[in-house]
Amino acid sequence: MNELTDRLEIEDLKESLHEVQTLLHRHERVGDDDDALTLPAEDLAALRARIEHLHPADIAYVLEALPLDERLIVWDLVKADRDGEILLEVSDAVRESLIASMDPQELVAAAETLEADEIADLAPDLPEGVIEEVVRALPLEERANLRAAMSFEEGSVGALMDFDMVTVREDVTLEAVTRLLRRMDELPDHTDQLFVVDRKQILRGSLPLGRLIVSDLDLLVSAVMVPEGVQLHPADHAEDASRAFERYDLVSAPVVDEDDRLIGRLTVDTVLDYIRESSSDSQLAEAGLREEEDIFAPVIASFKNRWGWLAVNLITAFVASRVIGLFEGSIERLVALAALMPIVAGIGGNSGNQTITMIVRALALDQIDRSYWRKLLSKEIGVALLNGVIWGGLLGGIASWLYRSIALGGVLALAMVLNLVLAAFMGVAIPWLRARFGRDPAVGSSVLITACTDSGGFFIFLGLATVFLL
Amino acid sequence: MNELTDRLEIEDLKESLHEVQTLLHRHERVGDDDDALTLPAEDLAALRARIEHLHPADIAYVLEALPLDERLIVWDLVKADRDGEILLEVSDAVRESLIASMDPQELVAAAETLEADEIADLAPDLPEGVIEEVVRALPLEERANLRAAMSFEEGSVGALMDFDMVTVREDVTLEAVTRLLRRMDELPDHTDQLFVVDRKQILRGSLPLGRLIVSDLDLLVSAVMVPEGVQLHPADHAEDASRAFERYDLVSAPVVDEDDRLIGRLTVDTVLDYIRESSSDSQLAEAGLREEEDIFAPVIASFKNRWGWLAVNLITAFVASRVIGLFEGSIERLVALAALMPIVAGIGGNSGNQTITMIVRALALDQIDRSYWRKLLSKEIGVALLNGVIWGGLLGGIASWLYRSIALGGVLALAMVLNLVLAAFMGVAIPWLRARFGRDPAVGSSVLITACTDSGGFFIFLGLATVFLL
Repeated sequence: MNELTDRLEIEDLKESLHEVQTLLHRHERVGDDDDALTLPAEDLAALRARIEHLHPADIAYVLEALPLDERLIVWDLVKADRDGEILLEVSDAVRESLIASMDPQELVAAAETLEADEIADLAPDLPEGVIEEVVRALPLEERANLRAAMSFEEGSVGALMDFDMVTVREDVTLEAVTRLLRRMDELPDHTDQLFVVDRKQILRGSLPLGRLIVSDLDLLVSAVMVPEGVQLHPADHAEDASRAFERYDLVSAPVVDEDDRLIGRLTVDTVLDYIRESSSDSQLAEAGLREEEDIFAPVIASFKNRWGWLAVNLITAFVASRVIGLFEGSIERLVALAALMPIVAGIGGNSGNQTITMIVRALALDQIDRSYWRKLLSKEIGVALLNGVIWGGLLGGIASWLYRSIALGGVLALAMVLNLVLAAFMGVAIPWLRARFGRDPAVGSSVLITACTDSGGFFIFLGLATVFLL
Repeated sequence: MNELTDRLEIEDLKESLHEVQTLLHRHERVGDDDDALTLPAEDLAALRARIEHLHPADIAYVLEALPLDERLIVWDLVKADRDGEILLEVSDAVRESLIASMDPQELVAAAETLEADEIADLAPDLPEGVIEEVVRALPLEERANLRAAMSFEEGSVGALMDFDMVTVREDVTLEAVTRLLRRMDELPDHTDQLFVVDRKQILRGSLPLGRLIVSDLDLLVSAVMVPEGVQLHPADHAEDASRAFERYDLVSAPVVDEDDRLIGRLTVDTVLDYIRESSSDSQLAEAGLREEEDIFAPVIASFKNRWGWLAVNLITAFVASRVIGLFEGSIERLVALAALMPIVAGIGGNSGNQTITMIVRALALDQIDRSYWRKLLSKEIGVALLNGVIWGGLLGGIASWLYRSIALGGVLALAMVLNLVLAAFMGVAIPWLRARFGRDPAVGSSVLITACTDSGGFFIFLGLATVFLL
């Protein structure tokens, strides 16, 4: 940290983590029973002092980086009134481990430090009884907000919005607005604009802070406000809303109901968290993980997170294996087929994944009009033929030389071309079909196409070989 | 669009795209020569009217969704003074296609509507001569900014920052600050705070707009400003900076040089674009695409984007094929081996990818301390053993029954266990080695581990079979 200005730099966080870990490891552990880890009082005091001034998000980062036993030591040292904020910041898996270590009173106390929309975010992880108690302790208006926030589906704007906004009327002067604001201690975070509503809470426009500052204070709000601008609905998909934030460079946006009544707002910090989380979810899903994993999770928890996709993979591998089984007679007579067949399957899978990734991405942006599918398909088949001729020719040549059989090389080359065309066709057809039937075209696409190109590749290659070589 | 308030809703964009496409397709094309597409004058006028009031980002979205011939028709209708903004918003691949259609004067005119940091973003795609001309036309200060912006490495804070910020001194009153701001027509976008600097431009703190508004105007800046806060350096990695924006919920952050002199600022809209782009890059890289592809790119351009990873895949498949070749004698004697071997390879690849994805993600956050690697490895091997016993046992049982050979089923089960352990080991070892030698642990990790588990799986299974079954 810079001593002169006391400002935070990027390296400070990593240093903090390192110092916490050093304090945790300063003394040799007694025995190797992980669960019974205790530290001398002086180390605990030093740790407490070290984390006291950290930002809640930084404490969350440190907690995520520690194995369970060390994590709970640090968690116990955190002041109770910061528990809520920190629980909001940690990853889902780590949050579970922290909540499991707290008793109901502690959880109620932690939740009570939060606002309605934040409690709603935490609610799925809290025991039933705790939520009830928290709700009962809330003021009436907050209780309605909490109920509203919890009623929206995950992934909708409603589930992400907050209620922390400043509204003004059209027919007052900027002078009056300024006086109103002065009466508040501070503006809600991410207030870049005030929302202008009428008596029925219907949104009329917005008053950007920048305009408020540079304009003459005698003017009326109606003269200075911006009537146009983006507005969201609680049922809008969060993904679409986040694209709107990106496109229009927003810091906040109003959320209105069907009657254009202002009911909340969405802010860019929430959008940022959402984007990071959803891109990380899709990355995890592609690798066959159901959700973010606590890297120090016990073996059994990791197993539960991972078994689903492994099972799917085993089924598709089993099907491919049965396809090969159909041709055991051919393989017995020409064993080179066994060695060459994975090449045909492999290139089909790889190329099909390229096609499907590109198309799923364009579909996610709603950028493919129905009239262009045929154009896309013929382009992809063109790329497949080009790849097939080049790589099939090369590998076919090598196989001809290795096995001293031009016919075998020719069959390999032809099988590669055909499997690449199959991959291109399925790479366009799978997302097209899923989009047509209203399913998310991304989920499991990679598994589906690999299944097609594996079984298809084995079938094409072994089938051609049976017809032409035996 | 809502008529009453004239506000923008999320569906409006998709409607706009649809209307543009309808106008483009209203009349049958003459012949099917795509390049010579022309529209009747009335349709052109209707199109021009339709896109005139669209936000530049929305026009970019529409352009990306059109095939090249239709895209260029729309592009020609865009007013010249909006070209620059739109070029900034479109994807790299589409930008290339647009720039290729413009002559140097048009490009110079487009670039001259932009600010220095924006020109720097565009520069890699512009012809040499155009950049020189643009630089010559810039005022001196802007020229220095442009040079600065172009000198920073891609992916650094310096390459993303802008120079559009308001600075004030500590020893003036808020009254004076307000007067200063009133003299500006509007504040720069995303101004949530003014930066407080001394005479040498050294950053002393920041004055959030919210505080300026709610505070007494007679107070001095020094009494109201926030001395602490996040500050970035131009050499900081953009990824780290974006994590800081996420953690601390920032809208803007100052960028300072080694002497703490303020040289620019980073804003959340840039960070949002960066996050989206980098997550999309990693998704593309995983599927073996070098970069974002224009979905309507010509076959040859797509081929160039994709051939690299296909070639790598072919090499690893070829190696695996040679491993199988070593055991052709065994396969000849027991042809069931050929059918079963892909199962062993497949589950290893899938499971290894799960491990490596999780570890690479934790590494990217710098959350794995050196002391925990051993712990991670033993956990991953535990998960592998559990998976191996369950799935190996199941598949081994099925194989025993199918091929009426308990020994064959036993070898399959054992091979699956061993390949899963190999996958776990490599899934930890590959990122560990790459991190140790300072390489990005993410790049190509999936290809590397699949190569290991394919060849390894074939070797383990066929080797065990040769020893125990023949």
